Amino acid sequence: MVESWSFLDTVESNFRPLVVIELAKGTKEETIEWFTKRIVDKKANGGAQLLIKPLVTENGVENIYLVGASHLRLLLGAETVGLVKECSDNSMRTFTYSSRKTFKHFADDNHNFLTMAECQYIIKHELENLRAKDEKMIPGYPQAKLYPGKSIVRRLLTSGILVQIFPLHDREELKKLCHSWYGRVKVGYQPLDDIRCYFGETIALYFGFLEYFTFALIPMAVIGIPYYMFAWEDYDKYVMFATFNLLWSTVLLEVWKRICAILTYRWGTLLMKRQFEEPRPGFHGVLGINPVTGREEPVYSSFKRQLRIYLVSLPFVCLCLYFSLYVMMIYFDLEQWALDYHKENESNFSSLMLYVPSIIYAVVIEIMNRIYRYAAEFLTSWENHRLESSYQNHLILKVLVFNFLNCFASLFYIAFVLFDMKLLRQSLATLLITSQILNQFAESLLPYWLQKRYNRRMKKRMCSKKSDMDLSLAEQVNMEKEMGTYLGTFDDYLELFLQFGYVSLFSCVYPLAAVFAVLNNITEIYSDALKMCRVYKRPFAEPTANIGVWQLAFETMSVISVVTNCILIGMSPEVDALFPDSKMDLVLTVALVEHLLLAIKFIMAFVIPDKPRDIQMKLAKLEFESLEALKQQVRAFQMQLHFVLICH
Amino acid sequence: MVESWSFLDTVESNFRPLVVIELAKGTKEETIEWFTKRIVDKKANGGAQLLIKPLVTENGVENIYLVGASHLRLLLGAETVGLVKECSDNSMRTFTYSSRKTFKHFADDNHNFLTMAECQYIIKHELENLRAKDEKMIPGYPQAKLYPGKSIVRRLLTSGILVQIFPLHDREELKKLCHSWYGRVKVGYQPLDDIRCYFGETIALYFGFLEYFTFALIPMAVIGIPYYMFAWEDYDKYVMFATFNLLWSTVLLEVWKRICAILTYRWGTLLMKRQFEEPRPGFHGVLGINPVTGREEPVYSSFKRQLRIYLVSLPFVCLCLYFSLYVMMIYFDLEQWALDYHKENESNFSSLMLYVPSIIYAVVIEIMNRIYRYAAEFLTSWENHRLESSYQNHLILKVLVFNFLNCFASLFYIAFVLFDMKLLRQSLATLLITSQILNQFAESLLPYWLQKRYNRRMKKRMCSKKSDMDLSLAEQVNMEKEMGTYLGTFDDYLELFLQFGYVSLFSCVYPLAAVFAVLNNITEIYSDALKMCRVYKRPFAEPTANIGVWQLAFETMSVISVVTNCILIGMSPEVDALFPDSKMDLVLTVALVEHLLLAIKFIMAFVIPDKPRDIQMKLAKLEFESLEALKQQVRAFQMQLHFVLICH
Repeated sequence: MVESWSFLDTVESNFRPLVVIELAKGTKEETIEWFTKRIVDKKANGGAQLLIKPLVTENGVENIYLVGASHLRLLLGAETVGLVKECSDNSMRTFTYSSRKTFKHFADDNHNFLTMAECQYIIKHELENLRAKDEKMIPGYPQAKLYPGKSIVRRLLTSGILVQIFPLHDREELKKLCHSWYGRVKVGYQPLDDIRCYFGETIALYFGFLEYFTFALIPMAVIGIPYYMFAWEDYDKYVMFATFNLLWSTVLLEVWKRICAILTYRWGTLLMKRQFEEPRPGFHGVLGINPVTGREEPVYSSFKRQLRIYLVSLPFVCLCLYFSLYVMMIYFDLEQWALDYHKENESNFSSLMLYVPSIIYAVVIEIMNRIYRYAAEFLTSWENHRLESSYQNHLILKVLVFNFLNCFASLFYIAFVLFDMKLLRQSLATLLITSQILNQFAESLLPYWLQKRYNRRMKKRMCSKKSDMDLSLAEQVNMEKEMGTYLGTFDDYLELFLQFGYVSLFSCVYPLAAVFAVLNNITEIYSDALKMCRVYKRPFAEPTANIGVWQLAFETMSVISVVTNCILIGMSPEVDALFPDSKMDLVLTVALVEHLLLAIKFIMAFVIPDKPRDIQMKLAKLEFESLEALKQQVRAFQMQLHFVLICH
Repeated sequence: MVESWSFLDTVESNFRPLVVIELAKGTKEETIEWFTKRIVDKKANGGAQLLIKPLVTENGVENIYLVGASHLRLLLGAETVGLVKECSDNSMRTFTYSSRKTFKHFADDNHNFLTMAECQYIIKHELENLRAKDEKMIPGYPQAKLYPGKSIVRRLLTSGILVQIFPLHDREELKKLCHSWYGRVKVGYQPLDDIRCYFGETIALYFGFLEYFTFALIPMAVIGIPYYMFAWEDYDKYVMFATFNLLWSTVLLEVWKRICAILTYRWGTLLMKRQFEEPRPGFHGVLGINPVTGREEPVYSSFKRQLRIYLVSLPFVCLCLYFSLYVMMIYFDLEQWALDYHKENESNFSSLMLYVPSIIYAVVIEIMNRIYRYAAEFLTSWENHRLESSYQNHLILKVLVFNFLNCFASLFYIAFVLFDMKLLRQSLATLLITSQILNQFAESLLPYWLQKRYNRRMKKRMCSKKSDMDLSLAEQVNMEKEMGTYLGTFDDYLELFLQFGYVSLFSCVYPLAAVFAVLNNITEIYSDALKMCRVYKRPFAEPTANIGVWQLAFETMSVISVVTNCILIGMSPEVDALFPDSKMDLVLTVALVEHLLLAIKFIMAFVIPDKPRDIQMKLAKLEFESLEALKQQVRAFQMQLHFVLICH
């Protein structure tokens, strides 16, 4: 390397735009000047040492800036964020600039050593960690206060000067990815490694889970089909099916942990050290001293937050739950009315009418879930959590409790209060199928229509161009900045979670549920892929080592399903007939079996290791190496000390 | 510090004996020479760089050696083992020699900065890590093979050349500790910090748990007394008592985690990094390459071990369980015989005879437990586990399963098969009280008697001496090497675990159990303290951050106790009377209550944080600091790089 670093930093020929910054129209010149200066400034002066270029279109400069970085800067950034890459000896190690030669595919002139998603993640990290020094406010905007250590980008975002930051698509890569992902109809695995390279680990892990879950449902679906075909109303067989389901759902969740470990080890995120969590963007409070970091930052009393949670959020959630139950009772009235109608004038039309209340109820459930989701987000953000993780946990808890009750309360009521198995089966089928159709519409047909419309609009704007590939950079940026923003995997996981509930909670009553789930998930993979590639802005890559709280949510659901299935089987007339003399024995047997199944579940979860043996070995090896290195260091220091003492 | 290190190492005046090494009588001169040379040799030459002195008694040199170390050597050793000490600013930090000035009470001439137990732990660590270089065998013993990296001390122990290594008592400190611990009759806490300084964290944590557990039982005992006094046979009250017990046992186990975190934070072990686990002493196999470390060491196929576990150990355990059940059936025959006898000739004697079968059975249970314990140890060690932790887990699992069944099977049988509440109460009381008396005898009266005998013997040997304090070093060593070896806290925890079972499993039948448990534990504290101070050799300190697998064992017991108590309450005639119409409703209500209680338990365990807030903050602060330090390091390196590139 002959060129000096500072030379590399300023050379224009190397500039590859990675991230787009859109400032508000009419942002003051002095602010722009200050902000760009801070971005390009040397690290030593507290800058981010990145490259920035205004985007020039036909209409002149439009307050849109492209950010890039020199190759060297990105490598140093990779060390700062703690990226884990594969070494030449196939082991995964934390990247450091000094040990760069030991990494696979590393060469000083190989600019593809870091994937584009990694480069964009590094730039995002560097921008977010661009912190105020002694500025008291953003120049030109006295109301946008700053204090030493405050993230400048976050203040710009909250005060509306910065409209958005997003990573650019790579048209060529995207086309390749689309082709291998959903472009051709084929039976096979998704290109998870390519998805991870392009969209990052969080999204790739979601698609990995979706695919795994779909495959895992296939045995349940295959066993479920003959129940429908031959109309097996024999409860012996239902018992077998339910028992299989219960053990299967435990195994599948445990095995997922292992597969997840294999994936994230390969992607390097299993080994990535957790970064220290900074306050989330929306967090506000009076300036104080953070007792952990000793830095000046906004402080919000935990007591006030508890008050907001217990005096406002909790009552609100309870009210919503009550309302949901109220709607459920209306649904039962409707159901009764439909039944009466069917009895009075028996016809094809009236027997079709029997399904109408369930369909209406399913639509209402979907609408309520979506409205509640916004309310929960508003409330949780009003609770003013300091950390993003704490915000997420409270939001997920709120949403899960409500969605669970909203979706399944009517089924529980039918099963355990009305004891109407026929209505349960009918209601379950209608709810499951309607919610899947609605979701597919909202996620696949709607995007497809938007896609069409946007294609037409684009075509109109630039008649001369033939395909997306030939777009100029300015056109590409202008097009992408108008696309929707992908809000994370929360809704996608939630959908899978509710589906898992429909399949497992009452599986012994409606074995066909698994079949519908599999069919739905196959189209889901395609529609989600389309959504990621074509409908939304490219999201920033987010490293992650597991699916987090969703693992716990799925496991809880599978514990609840043991209880419900045992009760359902116990209530069936066939099992009833096995105990003609004493209902007591029946109930006791069911309780015993339930406890045994739960015990087996917990023992299985305990016995099956969370990580496969070879991953465990690799982790042990890395741990051993780092301990050895530390020991070497201590030993070297002690030798040195020895030498100094002797020289005295 | 003017003296050089090497000077310090050889100066005799500084020698303070810390650890005793006893070699077998008739050990070859060449072996002794080689071993002592390796111990005193410089670190750079692969030695341990400790000080060693033969013990000279009236009978001349007796193959007993005293090991010590220079002050500097101990400080460097403290860094090697990763000791955590308190800083001047009251935070806990990992000790390093270079930052020694920042630690509380540190001074170059303060030789009490490290406690004696810490010094002994360091010496033990250094001795165990004294490894073979190119020796193929122990000089003088060609059958005792060595390979590079093999721990010399472990090979000497397994080949019988080294009889034992143990730390010396500090007579003065011990006297002070005894006085404050159990010397005077007082109501108050144990001096846990002093116990920790003298015996190390594992033992101090056991006494902490014993004390905490005793205090936690007091509310249960206080509530239980009126049940006995007023002969409340009212089941309403039993239900209240049982409900209180169930919630209380959950809370007490959760709160213990918090207290444990407070204690181990103060002692520094909460922050101590886990050392890489070396193979356990007894592990053997053919020489191979360890895939993790890449070192040559014995390798034993995991498949062979599995075969041993599943084809030998498992059948053996099942056989023992069967035998235990067989003995139980004999007990019931005896019980029946006693009842018949009582009916035939009703007298005071015959009503006393009713208790005899239970007492005999309790004694047999204790004997079987102890015999099984040896068998389990033999089997587990024969399974040839590579790591001590894996050995311990298999041993604990074996012992727990057998002891649980052996102790409680008869009670379960009486409660849920015979439905005889009167017999249950009588049997529970007899088993609990007999096992406590037996344990107290084995742990307190027997040691007391041994103590007496040993005092008499000692007095005889040296008539001139007046008290223990005036013993010469040689006499002290000779006396201590004859004392028994404390085998760890396993048996003590097991005793508490079984007691917890007696108290909680059937608490609603016999509320007085808690009273007996409290009384037993108070004497237990005293007898265990006596045992540690007077009966056994001083054990090496063992750093630990929690009570390990016992936490899980106690939690499992408390889950099982929810189930048993709910069933017992459901079976009671009073609750029965509440549901005169339908037994069904009764069973369903009981099942519902049980599930609710279990759900509450799990939610409580989830909601109560494992560490108090201030400990969490301190840990977060330390993590933040280490991340900041790493960042500084990366930044400094990058600056340096920048400089180099510019100079080019």
